[in-house]
Amino acid sequence: MVRVRPVIDKMEPYVPGRSIKEIAENYGLRESDIIKLGSNENPLGPSPAAVKAMERELESAHRYPESNLEDLHEAIADYAGVDGDQVIVGGDGADEIIDVLGRTFIDPGEAFVVPMPSYMYYEYTLQAHDSRPVHARWDVEENRLDLESVLDAIDDSTRLVFLCTPNNPTGGLIDKKDIKAVAESTDALVVVDEAYFEFAGVSNVDLLSDHENIFIMRTFSKVMGLAGMRIGYGLGSPEVIDYMHRVKPVFSLTRPSHAAALATLQDREYLERSAEYSIRSREYLYGELKNFESLRVFESYANYILLDVRGTGKTAAELAEELLRRGIIVRDCTSFSGLDEYWIRVSVGTLEEDKRFLEVLAEIIS
Amino acid sequence: MVRVRPVIDKMEPYVPGRSIKEIAENYGLRESDIIKLGSNENPLGPSPAAVKAMERELESAHRYPESNLEDLHEAIADYAGVDGDQVIVGGDGADEIIDVLGRTFIDPGEAFVVPMPSYMYYEYTLQAHDSRPVHARWDVEENRLDLESVLDAIDDSTRLVFLCTPNNPTGGLIDKKDIKAVAESTDALVVVDEAYFEFAGVSNVDLLSDHENIFIMRTFSKVMGLAGMRIGYGLGSPEVIDYMHRVKPVFSLTRPSHAAALATLQDREYLERSAEYSIRSREYLYGELKNFESLRVFESYANYILLDVRGTGKTAAELAEELLRRGIIVRDCTSFSGLDEYWIRVSVGTLEEDKRFLEVLAEIIS
Repeated sequence: MVRVRPVIDKMEPYVPGRSIKEIAENYGLRESDIIKLGSNENPLGPSPAAVKAMERELESAHRYPESNLEDLHEAIADYAGVDGDQVIVGGDGADEIIDVLGRTFIDPGEAFVVPMPSYMYYEYTLQAHDSRPVHARWDVEENRLDLESVLDAIDDSTRLVFLCTPNNPTGGLIDKKDIKAVAESTDALVVVDEAYFEFAGVSNVDLLSDHENIFIMRTFSKVMGLAGMRIGYGLGSPEVIDYMHRVKPVFSLTRPSHAAALATLQDREYLERSAEYSIRSREYLYGELKNFESLRVFESYANYILLDVRGTGKTAAELAEELLRRGIIVRDCTSFSGLDEYWIRVSVGTLEEDKRFLEVLAEIIS
Repeated sequence: MVRVRPVIDKMEPYVPGRSIKEIAENYGLRESDIIKLGSNENPLGPSPAAVKAMERELESAHRYPESNLEDLHEAIADYAGVDGDQVIVGGDGADEIIDVLGRTFIDPGEAFVVPMPSYMYYEYTLQAHDSRPVHARWDVEENRLDLESVLDAIDDSTRLVFLCTPNNPTGGLIDKKDIKAVAESTDALVVVDEAYFEFAGVSNVDLLSDHENIFIMRTFSKVMGLAGMRIGYGLGSPEVIDYMHRVKPVFSLTRPSHAAALATLQDREYLERSAEYSIRSREYLYGELKNFESLRVFESYANYILLDVRGTGKTAAELAEELLRRGIIVRDCTSFSGLDEYWIRVSVGTLEEDKRFLEVLAEIIS
């Protein structure tokens, strides 16, 4: 047998998830009837301007994408309030940005810090870099960052610190002063994951001017409505961005993705409407979920809500399965480090989808 | 300043290429008049079935892609004559496959072997893995692999050997017996890059059954007409494929890319027509180029032709610039290791594009 890297040999084999088609077939559902509340997507769909822009690219699908993304860098810079040379775009959503961060900053054996529970893909991606995850703590009960645990986790071998705000899957925000405190305590790069910031109305971009070791990571997969097109971006000091560009895949953004990103950024009305809608839908869902005595419901600044379901007498896996049987996909959080087997994350849908979810939930746990 | 990895610090800063729009503006051309013979794309455009399939996905652009690509694995397996568990799909063309090969097989300091000149992206991608390129030799004069140089370059630290056939940018084929000889000489994985195999009508897939250290790499960017959608694939032993899946980005293929790949594989008439057309166009272009006394023209099994232009008294850069001024993009090969500053690679276009290229070339060098 060919020799693989020792770090790969120790990993678990990959088990693909079920496709929507398989789920529909298994449960006797129609694909179009399945309600997707598992991935925190924009329930209103993509911007119509983005759809038109993509359509125009399809006949050119045989041509390589532009390697020069300056127009998109400028459009993002304008949206985010930075300069064009402070922007890097990823062609696999923010996941590519995470990978490029790993390539740029972490040598084998060096460490990165993540408070748990948080987004699991940091660790999934960086394990292949043979780097060392060091877990700090997210205080789930208070739904806030345990700042001391982060400061304690950082040492001379730390190269990256991930701070997700609003935090996935808990929905809590991190105080700006805590982010500053972390950045000022270390030379490591502090990666502030703002995938959901539009639903909170709070950003930390203003910290970039005073802290060259802060990096903001964002995505077109949430309020921008383009999860299927795999576009992410990062904002940082020109020096950090320059280093990252040296190792970023040059052509990873597809032609339609490039066009869709530009069109969506120009459609500010869509972006505002989408954020407002999901916030309204979130507040409705939160209020209704509070009426279930067997659930603990966590306040959220994002487009999802975390539920502690142990009061129902069912595990998250059991509850998710019963929902799925009735055509509703939610996220069983058992695989999140720092949570046990009794947590579910439900995305904010359209108001109709929320209602249907609440009805079905009532059937199951009342 | 944040500490970057030493290997990154030593790299050259990335300089983005010019966009088509910039080129058009700089030279006073219309974008639609520019003839692109620089990237070996399918001049006939994408399959109409692929365009339709992509159109159907656009309204779902807010949904994540399927992480489960089994339908595409099966369709590729059927096309290539292997089993579904011998297929891995990359979401950034074959470039993602190269990256995943690096992650799976090469630890820092270990080596990979490439005969030069060949495709430069192997080295571009793998340098970020801190691995060591070892150059073997492609015999340009004879346009064939210098087998001995490859066997000599392999040692105990070799983890990957790249053999590109037809070779980019020279167009020559590698004998199947040479590929076998390399595979049988080492435990390293021998990566046979068949990006252009459809234009040669020769594949080495049959070697997979007897050699578990052979891996075939291919792309949807050439005859498949989908360079802008970034789809590549690899074929190998189920064990190799399983290891690679552990570290492959899960969502890197966009929704329209997935749909386009499936539709193109079903459109066998388009694939045959595309290969036949480009072969005919190549033979026409080759015959006409032979009439230029100042050019040395290399026979090609791919959809491009390598030219030695030193007889014109111009460097490749000068000649490429003069062509560009007149709206024709070709590839100046100066950046290919193993070639000096007098080589140009020209892609096979439509017959009309070939004719226009020949006319303009005659104006410049006659």
